[in-house]
Amino acid sequence: MTTKKIYDVILAHEEARGEAFLKKIEGRKPLFICVIGSTETAKIPGLSAAGKYPELTEYTPAADVELLLLGSCKCIKGVPVTPEGIPTPALITMSALRLADIPSLVVSGGVKIKPLVPYLDLGGKPGGDIRTGKATEDAEEILLRAKIAGENLSNVAEYLVVGESIPGGTTTALGVLLAMGIDARGKVSSSMPKNPHELKIKVVEEGLKAAKVEFGALAFDPLKAVSCVGDPMIPAFAGLVLGAAHRVPVLMAGGTQVSAVLAVVKSFDRQVLGNVAIGTTRWIIEDKGADLKGIITQIADIPILAADLDFSRSRFDGLKAYERGFVKEGVGAGGATIAAMAKSKGLITAATLLEEIEKNYERLVA
Amino acid sequence: MTTKKIYDVILAHEEARGEAFLKKIEGRKPLFICVIGSTETAKIPGLSAAGKYPELTEYTPAADVELLLLGSCKCIKGVPVTPEGIPTPALITMSALRLADIPSLVVSGGVKIKPLVPYLDLGGKPGGDIRTGKATEDAEEILLRAKIAGENLSNVAEYLVVGESIPGGTTTALGVLLAMGIDARGKVSSSMPKNPHELKIKVVEEGLKAAKVEFGALAFDPLKAVSCVGDPMIPAFAGLVLGAAHRVPVLMAGGTQVSAVLAVVKSFDRQVLGNVAIGTTRWIIEDKGADLKGIITQIADIPILAADLDFSRSRFDGLKAYERGFVKEGVGAGGATIAAMAKSKGLITAATLLEEIEKNYERLVA
Repeated sequence: MTTKKIYDVILAHEEARGEAFLKKIEGRKPLFICVIGSTETAKIPGLSAAGKYPELTEYTPAADVELLLLGSCKCIKGVPVTPEGIPTPALITMSALRLADIPSLVVSGGVKIKPLVPYLDLGGKPGGDIRTGKATEDAEEILLRAKIAGENLSNVAEYLVVGESIPGGTTTALGVLLAMGIDARGKVSSSMPKNPHELKIKVVEEGLKAAKVEFGALAFDPLKAVSCVGDPMIPAFAGLVLGAAHRVPVLMAGGTQVSAVLAVVKSFDRQVLGNVAIGTTRWIIEDKGADLKGIITQIADIPILAADLDFSRSRFDGLKAYERGFVKEGVGAGGATIAAMAKSKGLITAATLLEEIEKNYERLVA
Repeated sequence: MTTKKIYDVILAHEEARGEAFLKKIEGRKPLFICVIGSTETAKIPGLSAAGKYPELTEYTPAADVELLLLGSCKCIKGVPVTPEGIPTPALITMSALRLADIPSLVVSGGVKIKPLVPYLDLGGKPGGDIRTGKATEDAEEILLRAKIAGENLSNVAEYLVVGESIPGGTTTALGVLLAMGIDARGKVSSSMPKNPHELKIKVVEEGLKAAKVEFGALAFDPLKAVSCVGDPMIPAFAGLVLGAAHRVPVLMAGGTQVSAVLAVVKSFDRQVLGNVAIGTTRWIIEDKGADLKGIITQIADIPILAADLDFSRSRFDGLKAYERGFVKEGVGAGGATIAAMAKSKGLITAATLLEEIEKNYERLVA
């Protein structure tokens, strides 16, 4: 892995392009967008750690975006945590956005629990269990509406940072990637230190079988891939990128989920690829149990930037746990951090950010 | 009436401040926001002309914003028209926004028919018939969520232009104004040449009686005024202004409805008043059957700007009818026109705009 850094941002892949992308956004004012969605897939035991109990994961997307917009959650007490009590990465995102005075907007691809804050509705419904082979209704309409939103927002903001929150999202991403012929088996990420790869592959294979879809059969039909084994977040996120990236740079904030979005984007419009980068965290690119780069390189030559956050010396065990492989990324935490650093031209560092995160941790979790 | 103009914008009230406001926004990039809502009040026969039949008025807000975002309506054929076939002012708004490349966003305070385009949901419900005295649920929550949206959007856009679409809206505005002690009897506007003032007053008085509210009794309780005899558009619009106007100028686009919003805004936060102006059309300020200035001066010293549109020499009777008192304003038509002129520093004129409107009329109506 390369160790070249600008500010506290690691140029993790496609170094020169990554550096050029960072130059483009330096000092500029972004809009942060969090795309939320839900999938019944998240309730399969052992798959997702984005909630204290499987039932609570339904509240996680809503609670995450409430945290971003209000500074605290409204639909649940405290903040979303893993079964071990490790807090949501939205804590990082919120801290970064507040420190850098970056505005945010919520977009819903389709969620079961609606957030108690303003959100852009695209008419989508919550996603089903992908084992049925019928995962997402109206994927095309969600994508088209998101594209309209992306076009309009790109005419206001200097650039966009788009993140997501959908428990179970790495499994649905794996579904879309496999259906589109991108071999992501054993490469997708997990919010748990021990990545349940086999379970994820089993779930996806069950879905592909139910939909009568073989590996790679939908390489040129991304909407069908989403409909069969994806989730409603993916077409919403992809539509935003497709609508916006012709006019402004788009930092796609996340890990595995973002790779599935990228595959969809690429098959609609290769032209926008020159104006996007992936923004994630060091915990993702250092993860031995997954391989983001190995997925991305099968799709397109896109730079990967990684926020060099370091929680090893945090005062709080709940944050230190990030260094042991818990959570790692989500709710655009890495991308929001990179945007905060770029907007402040490096004045905001990993250290100042950790201080802010700890302050918020103390207020909300401790 | 003053006739001083800048570009084709009439400084209709508070000339010096109006000029200063125009200077502030000249050459800048706005975001246009259309706030939609619905009220059962619109179905009272003889009250609203914002639809071919009373039942069709329910589709008007959705169709209006579809026209803005898509260039054509989706939930109805053609475009919304009055019973006489005169087309929606959204035709003007859409033409102005497209000509000046101004992006737009839809915000819903609560609507019965949901638009088939992206819209910001504030959790509000469609409004009831104000004769029951129970017009709007959760007015406070709508306002608070809109305020959050306004704060975030004002951190992206250089300024905001906010318009509205709610059939029956002049009657609910009259309700809020009277409840708050602003004597708007005989002063509110109408989309018909013959303004049914007496019917509107009767409807509002029935509502006030049902809610046990006397004239002026809610001067300091705007949310109760909205809850009893208002509509869900008003708190959404007011919240956006309250959230945004501390940071950027806000052009409140409309006539009577905007005066009710202004009354609500003022009673929450007088400080923002210095950063707002009203943007409307010449047809509103020349209307002998209403008196916008007479309402506004009871509330605050806010400049009124009026787009000097002239349809008298249009090729189309449906547009000429605007000169005979049909429609007059709505969907932020006046404000969008002013914003287009200001953004282009006067390059876009009333004449070039009419050309564009006629092109769209031909495509969609004729």
